[in-house]
Amino acid sequence: SSSMTPTDGRGSNFTDFPYLSAPHRSLMLDLLSRVEDRLGSQLQPYALPPDVEYFQNEAGTSRGSLYAKRGHSSSLVDFVLGIWLNCRLPTGGELNTTSLLGYLKGITDAPNFLLEIIRSGPTSLVLVLDLSPRRDLIMHPDYLKSFYQDTNADAHRQALLSLPEAQPYFSPALYIRSMMSPTASLLKIDAGNEGEGRLEEIVGGQLADASKTMLEIWLDKCALDECGRGTHESERAYLEKRDRIVRGKTIDIDLASSFPPLFGPEIAGRIIGVLREIYGL
Amino acid sequence: SSSMTPTDGRGSNFTDFPYLSAPHRSLMLDLLSRVEDRLGSQLQPYALPPDVEYFQNEAGTSRGSLYAKRGHSSSLVDFVLGIWLNCRLPTGGELNTTSLLGYLKGITDAPNFLLEIIRSGPTSLVLVLDLSPRRDLIMHPDYLKSFYQDTNADAHRQALLSLPEAQPYFSPALYIRSMMSPTASLLKIDAGNEGEGRLEEIVGGQLADASKTMLEIWLDKCALDECGRGTHESERAYLEKRDRIVRGKTIDIDLASSFPPLFGPEIAGRIIGVLREIYGL
Repeated sequence: SSSMTPTDGRGSNFTDFPYLSAPHRSLMLDLLSRVEDRLGSQLQPYALPPDVEYFQNEAGTSRGSLYAKRGHSSSLVDFVLGIWLNCRLPTGGELNTTSLLGYLKGITDAPNFLLEIIRSGPTSLVLVLDLSPRRDLIMHPDYLKSFYQDTNADAHRQALLSLPEAQPYFSPALYIRSMMSPTASLLKIDAGNEGEGRLEEIVGGQLADASKTMLEIWLDKCALDECGRGTHESERAYLEKRDRIVRGKTIDIDLASSFPPLFGPEIAGRIIGVLREIYGL
Repeated sequence: SSSMTPTDGRGSNFTDFPYLSAPHRSLMLDLLSRVEDRLGSQLQPYALPPDVEYFQNEAGTSRGSLYAKRGHSSSLVDFVLGIWLNCRLPTGGELNTTSLLGYLKGITDAPNFLLEIIRSGPTSLVLVLDLSPRRDLIMHPDYLKSFYQDTNADAHRQALLSLPEAQPYFSPALYIRSMMSPTASLLKIDAGNEGEGRLEEIVGGQLADASKTMLEIWLDKCALDECGRGTHESERAYLEKRDRIVRGKTIDIDLASSFPPLFGPEIAGRIIGVLREIYGL
């Protein structure tokens, strides 16, 4: 499925997802169109430079694409961000990652949406799927109840984990672990040798189901819940400070370490610079 | 190993651990003597009523024992608490749980020590071993660094999880999950049919090693770190409020639901009442 290479020198559109398997591409397209349908006119395109919308390293072994839309001033949404990367690995394999993130503004304290699918080969993947909390859950048991107990969010983690091919995944970065909710699906799915067909079945089946349901919860209860969780002006500074720390750490730990080896310092610097701008850092 | 029943009508001392296997008993004795040796004169006995120090239900199928010492006024330690329970299960099996908890006062923000070993049969157990954080780790990356990164706490979780008999355990209570640090060892260890010998080997080996090392970290860096993490008076009220919420939730979710079915409402109420007093609730 990596045959659909963009024509020489020209970038592909983000939504072409040219290197993904059919079920993976179809899942990402479905999620993105749900976001755009439901948030609709609340979103405005973010003016990405063409060499950020699509970028590749000099050797032509790594490429990627960004998608970003910002919420209008009246929206709870700060931004929606998509990233895909495709990299030929020194081992001969191929790395394909796709992310879809929805971040909210400080006028609400509702969780952010987080989806990352990391495929480092045809038969296994790492999944990060969460409504990432923006409050200290210990101090705010009502927050835990609203967004995680009442939404039955843990059922989706449990369903995925009940697959014989799935096991819990632990990020090596403790800060990243701390960012996740107690219902986060942090899983490694390994379909074993010759398990390519089985893995695609899971991506198009249980993984797609869980991702779509979690996205709907986020849209209904977080991004579009206009009257639900307005924050008092007095606590907004605290919330925004917390958001800023999380955003900065996410970029420092996650992106700033993975981009340079794949794209070289210049391209990595350009992409991370734009991401910092989108994140408001 | 459940033959050493206390003589009729008389309770056993907490440290007899009369129903535990030899490696399990030896581990608990070792941990308790480390606590007493290291904290020494900082601890004073807590006057427990005799029917709380040892208690059993009317049918004689469930029994338990409490141990509690309170820190002197100059100590960072609020209390050290031990609990063991032994219950014959309707299925014919036997439940043996042992807990050792070390809670600190609001004059420090260092983590609490948490060890719980739940054996619902001779070949499997659930382990909860953690330095439970008392700060929002997202707002306090330095706290994460001091107590979890610099102490290499994750190495012990990883070592236990690398046992083929171990797998991650998820508490059904989301609030309990939220209380844990990202390096918490929350594991189910199942040695399989006829694996009794193997399980005892793990209890006396890797489980004992991890528990002792984590306890030493807690003693060195938390309970005895006199000058390290003093809290400003201005933030103490916040910290104590957070502690109170955690303590209340721990009792409500964990103990208040498990004691009544095992001991009946009257004994359960008595024990939980004393625990609430020890917890300062």
